[in-house]
Amino acid sequence: MSSQGVKLVGFWVSPFVLRVEWALKLKGIEYEYIEEDIFNKSPLLLDLNPVHQKVPVMVHDGKVMAESFVILEYIDETWKQTPLLPQDPNERAMARFWAKSVEEKLLETAWIAMCSQGDEKENALKSAREVLEKIEGELNGKKFFGGEAIGYLDLAVGWISFWLPVWEEVGSMKILDPSKFPNIIAWMSHFLKHPVVKERLPPRDEMVIYFDKRSKEIAALIASAKHG
Amino acid sequence: MSSQGVKLVGFWVSPFVLRVEWALKLKGIEYEYIEEDIFNKSPLLLDLNPVHQKVPVMVHDGKVMAESFVILEYIDETWKQTPLLPQDPNERAMARFWAKSVEEKLLETAWIAMCSQGDEKENALKSAREVLEKIEGELNGKKFFGGEAIGYLDLAVGWISFWLPVWEEVGSMKILDPSKFPNIIAWMSHFLKHPVVKERLPPRDEMVIYFDKRSKEIAALIASAKHG
Repeated sequence: MSSQGVKLVGFWVSPFVLRVEWALKLKGIEYEYIEEDIFNKSPLLLDLNPVHQKVPVMVHDGKVMAESFVILEYIDETWKQTPLLPQDPNERAMARFWAKSVEEKLLETAWIAMCSQGDEKENALKSAREVLEKIEGELNGKKFFGGEAIGYLDLAVGWISFWLPVWEEVGSMKILDPSKFPNIIAWMSHFLKHPVVKERLPPRDEMVIYFDKRSKEIAALIASAKHG
Repeated sequence: MSSQGVKLVGFWVSPFVLRVEWALKLKGIEYEYIEEDIFNKSPLLLDLNPVHQKVPVMVHDGKVMAESFVILEYIDETWKQTPLLPQDPNERAMARFWAKSVEEKLLETAWIAMCSQGDEKENALKSAREVLEKIEGELNGKKFFGGEAIGYLDLAVGWISFWLPVWEEVGSMKILDPSKFPNIIAWMSHFLKHPVVKERLPPRDEMVIYFDKRSKEIAALIASAKHG
């Protein structure tokens, strides 16, 4: 791998990779995309990210970085055009707080809900809806989380607009009730219409096939662990 | 609660709270400390941090913030004296990456090792030592992670210097083998000698009693879940 320019090691359906791609595109940064087989990890990935062995990994002028939120901050600090984070320290703190909270409390519970049944599914759905209620209040009629322009928190939670409906379909469940979350539904529409997002989304039909397979594999693993 | 000045809602033995206190003291910021009973949460805490209901919560001029790493960034952006994060974007990314990785891969595994027995304990110890090996390499003879001065990553992983030895004692286990981690042992000594850290540490004997009780409660919970 040459030490010049920007390279991004990714996986086509990873929301963590896509948020980095959206950020690079918003900033107008050219990058070389390298698709990784996460089920048969390449020596390149293990070399670049030995701690977590996960995508995304970004290489900029030979400097290697991992963890999507860390990479987003790096992108925002390195290329100042089209700022992602707000300027005010308190608004920056809020954006970081909600990015982290949604990751830990919504992404994880929605994933568990998709892969489980019965009480486990119901509990996960309940937790997921509680977090959605809070971010519904955060939006409060704004076009994007940061206001008129798309920003850090929009990219961080962008998966809600496209991955979550797929997970709902695969998991035969409803989380995004439009009557309860009108602000989020409106935000989804703005987000998906943004030119940078629109041009860089995975094919929906392939996502459904992929997550259907993954959720069944995980459900089988959980069942065998319970009965083993 | 008045809207002026800085208030910190904490718990005496929380390493997440202490890292925020060290940051405030390094910056020379006066604050009012409010002790929270985390086992009988106050309406104040539930009001200030409804999402996670955890300490630390910091209030600055009426603005409420939670999550210790988010608060550290806010402190560094609001009061510019004695910078915590490095100036170079790549060094900043590395500090954030290691802070997050140690939190997820070392703090959690060391805690599990303390509260468990048998294979579970051995697996957790193995994972914990793997992360220590990586940060041993990161230090590479430096006094602090950032170089000559104490900084963000030192505060983030500061618990290794004082909490981890207590957890080793309580869990009858050895993680910090001095022959394997000479850089970390030297860093611990520098860190604990720093005036700001030295003056703000919980009483060690009370920590041992507290974590001994907590680890037994958690072990009992796990055992009852397994046999329930």
